[in-house]
Amino acid sequence: MAKVLSGAGLRGQVAGKTALSTVGKSGSGLTYRGYDVKDLAEKCEFEEVAHLILKGNLPNQAELDAYKTKLKGLRGLPAPLKTVLENIPKDAHPMDVMRTGVSMLGNLETEMSFDEQGDQADRILATLSSMICYWYRFSHDGVKIETETDDDTIGAHFLHMLRGEKPNELHERVMNVSLILYAEHEFNASTFTARVCASTLSDMHSCVTGAIGSLRGPLHGGANEAAMEMIENWKSADEAEREMMGMLERKEKIMGFGHAIYSESDPRNAIIKEWSEKLASDVGDTVLYPVSVRCEEVMWREKKLFCNADFFHASAYHFMDIPTKLFTPIFVVSRVTGWAAHVMEQRADNRIIRPSAEYTGEELRPVPSIAER
Amino acid sequence: MAKVLSGAGLRGQVAGKTALSTVGKSGSGLTYRGYDVKDLAEKCEFEEVAHLILKGNLPNQAELDAYKTKLKGLRGLPAPLKTVLENIPKDAHPMDVMRTGVSMLGNLETEMSFDEQGDQADRILATLSSMICYWYRFSHDGVKIETETDDDTIGAHFLHMLRGEKPNELHERVMNVSLILYAEHEFNASTFTARVCASTLSDMHSCVTGAIGSLRGPLHGGANEAAMEMIENWKSADEAEREMMGMLERKEKIMGFGHAIYSESDPRNAIIKEWSEKLASDVGDTVLYPVSVRCEEVMWREKKLFCNADFFHASAYHFMDIPTKLFTPIFVVSRVTGWAAHVMEQRADNRIIRPSAEYTGEELRPVPSIAER
Ligand SMILES: CC(C)(COP(=O)(O)OP(=O)(O)OC[C@H]1O[C@@H](n2cnc3c(N)ncnc32)[C@H](O)[C@@H]1OP(=O)(O)O)[C@@H](O)C(=O)NCCC(=O)NCCS
Ligand SMILES: CC(C)(COP(=O)(O)OP(=O)(O)OC[C@H]1O[C@@H](n2cnc3c(N)ncnc32)[C@H](O)[C@@H]1OP(=O)(O)O)[C@@H](O)C(=O)NCCC(=O)NCCS
Repeated sequence: MAKVLSGAGLRGQVAGKTALSTVGKSGSGLTYRGYDVKDLAEKCEFEEVAHLILKGNLPNQAELDAYKTKLKGLRGLPAPLKTVLENIPKDAHPMDVMRTGVSMLGNLETEMSFDEQGDQADRILATLSSMICYWYRFSHDGVKIETETDDDTIGAHFLHMLRGEKPNELHERVMNVSLILYAEHEFNASTFTARVCASTLSDMHSCVTGAIGSLRGPLHGGANEAAMEMIENWKSADEAEREMMGMLERKEKIMGFGHAIYSESDPRNAIIKEWSEKLASDVGDTVLYPVSVRCEEVMWREKKLFCNADFFHASAYHFMDIPTKLFTPIFVVSRVTGWAAHVMEQRADNRIIRPSAEYTGEELRPVPSIAER
Repeated sequence: MAKVLSGAGLRGQVAGKTALSTVGKSGSGLTYRGYDVKDLAEKCEFEEVAHLILKGNLPNQAELDAYKTKLKGLRGLPAPLKTVLENIPKDAHPMDVMRTGVSMLGNLETEMSFDEQGDQADRILATLSSMICYWYRFSHDGVKIETETDDDTIGAHFLHMLRGEKPNELHERVMNVSLILYAEHEFNASTFTARVCASTLSDMHSCVTGAIGSLRGPLHGGANEAAMEMIENWKSADEAEREMMGMLERKEKIMGFGHAIYSESDPRNAIIKEWSEKLASDVGDTVLYPVSVRCEEVMWREKKLFCNADFFHASAYHFMDIPTKLFTPIFVVSRVTGWAAHVMEQRADNRIIRPSAEYTGEELRPVPSIAER
């Protein structure tokens, strides 16, 4: 299932060890600490998976209750962080908001020793939804929301803050699945950013801040939003097919397709696609879901390119009425578990990550005086 | 001059191409676009080197004048950024302040297209000193300083804001040298962070924010502060020798020594050491400089470890009355030129940086029900 490539982008080069996940290992597409993501998405809540990734084991009932209680107690935002969020304009990029929010939190609750790393990770995990929703509701609706709710899960907490009312069971379930699917993915670019940062022995907030910046890019997390912006233009599956054929002819990149490691399919796609279909029938959609399915067919037929995790996330989130610009921030809420676990893993067996470069520039030359330039 | 190593930390592995600098190539220790850093530090102002790195050439007089005028015009901070800085407590880590400052700027002046990259880099370069000094003076002295001064160079601008008066010629010259020495260093950890982030096609502020987080680590930029905190405890060269011998015996890492690439010396050391000596005689120092020299002797004698760029920067900055906690931020003010140039280089020939990992974790296993855990 894994592509073999070399050359640019360190593709196929081993940059370190991990016990956290496998991507594209034969027999199973994606595992977190040995568990197939499909199995986890079927049977678990996101908090169980977060516990697995961050603490090392799937929690029993007592551990899960304790962990959820802990996370619930960490949802509040310090006043200076609220002030910062209130000063970010409505038209800002939400990933910039999250990056700034975590960075600001690092000023207020600095990690003073690596002994704090587990608690710092939990705190960041619990506040990310609060930050983005606080900013969103303040800048768009002019309200200062209460972020300390009693919602049972992080997914429900997010939707509750966004909408001002508790979500139904279906939506809470889809959020759980989505957060599980996005939680961890080995040495992807944002996680690798976090590890490079960690290798200098920097603090947890720096690592997470840097990772958010990388996830923002359209070749990485930004793809779910880009996919949405594309498919929402199309009014039928036939129109979608026509337009895609044109894009392929013009050699445009189509967001939500392809993968650096998987070569035949992304195991997360079938799972989120099924939930997108359920949501489509729940809302009575007859356009967006068929359009999405046709895109998948065309890309496979024409290019042997398959949907990655992001593509059917676009329609799924849309059916839950989540504004497109908050798609990638939800990815952050989830992936922070993987990032933080990789930071801890890097710290436990560290050498500063400092590769070499091939030099392609000028030969040695003397500095001319300014008059001679 | 270059070590050959492999294995952890991607040491010795080629992660991409660059025309910006060479580190440890035989014949010359460190070059920026073909010019030896020693030559540059002798003959140039920092702004000339920034122009070299960011625009590709050493400026002639007209270009230099225009560039300095441009940078001077960019020193002001937007009001919401000032508000953010005013909300960061006095005891925050100054690198967290800079990271947050650049991240906030990204919300207010988002890079909307890569066409803006050169201007965005200049704007960040011009505001970094303003940000750190604005926060420092507000949180420590309770004053809201004017950051739009008419100082001729970035080094003078920094010292002026910090002290409330223009620096003398010697100090301005040392700042120029120091900023030149720190400006660029190939694929070091913070620059590599910036490139990984850039490879997702994320924006300039994300790349620089991430790089600041990596530079913060004590194995990287944080070393100049750590060196200062060590040497300021010692009242004589003999005491320094005794204490260092103890540290070596206890196998402690001694900050400001050693390097991932250089194996015999760091070419920047001789240059900053000479200026540190000049400053020592200027202030009539009889302790810190001799202590520093003894440290260098002991480390070489005992371990064949040499001072890197950071070690004599500690005493040099101290002699200029710069608070220790602002040492690494000055490194940021300089290195942002290298970071931004690497971002542009990565964008010009990009593939997402996504290495692989060696898996060391659990074999595939089924998810037990919660009652069975
Ligand atoms: C994910 C991705 C960055 C992997 O990149 P990579 O490992 O460097 O692979 P490449 O970009 O070299 O792709 C190999 C070939 O497939 C093509 N390709 C890959 N993804 C494509 C896409 N989404 N649309 C059109 N063509 C694509 C490339 O153009 C390339 O063709 P070429 O060999 O003719 O140049 C890439 O597939 C992509 O950009 N996808 C769209 C963005 C996205 O969805 N990202 C989310 C990832 S979870
Ligand atoms: C710069 C640095 C991170 C390079 O790391 P690296 O390439 O991974 O090299 P290593 O850390 O593996 O060093 C090789 C050996 O020298 C030793 N060593 C390196 N720097 C040392 C130092 N500053 N003090 C004591 N021992 C040191 C290492 O312990 C190691 O010994 P070992 O082989 O017995 O384990 C490392 O030298 C260091 O940590 N220096 C101190 C921090 C510093 O000044 N950073 C600023 C760099 S500009």
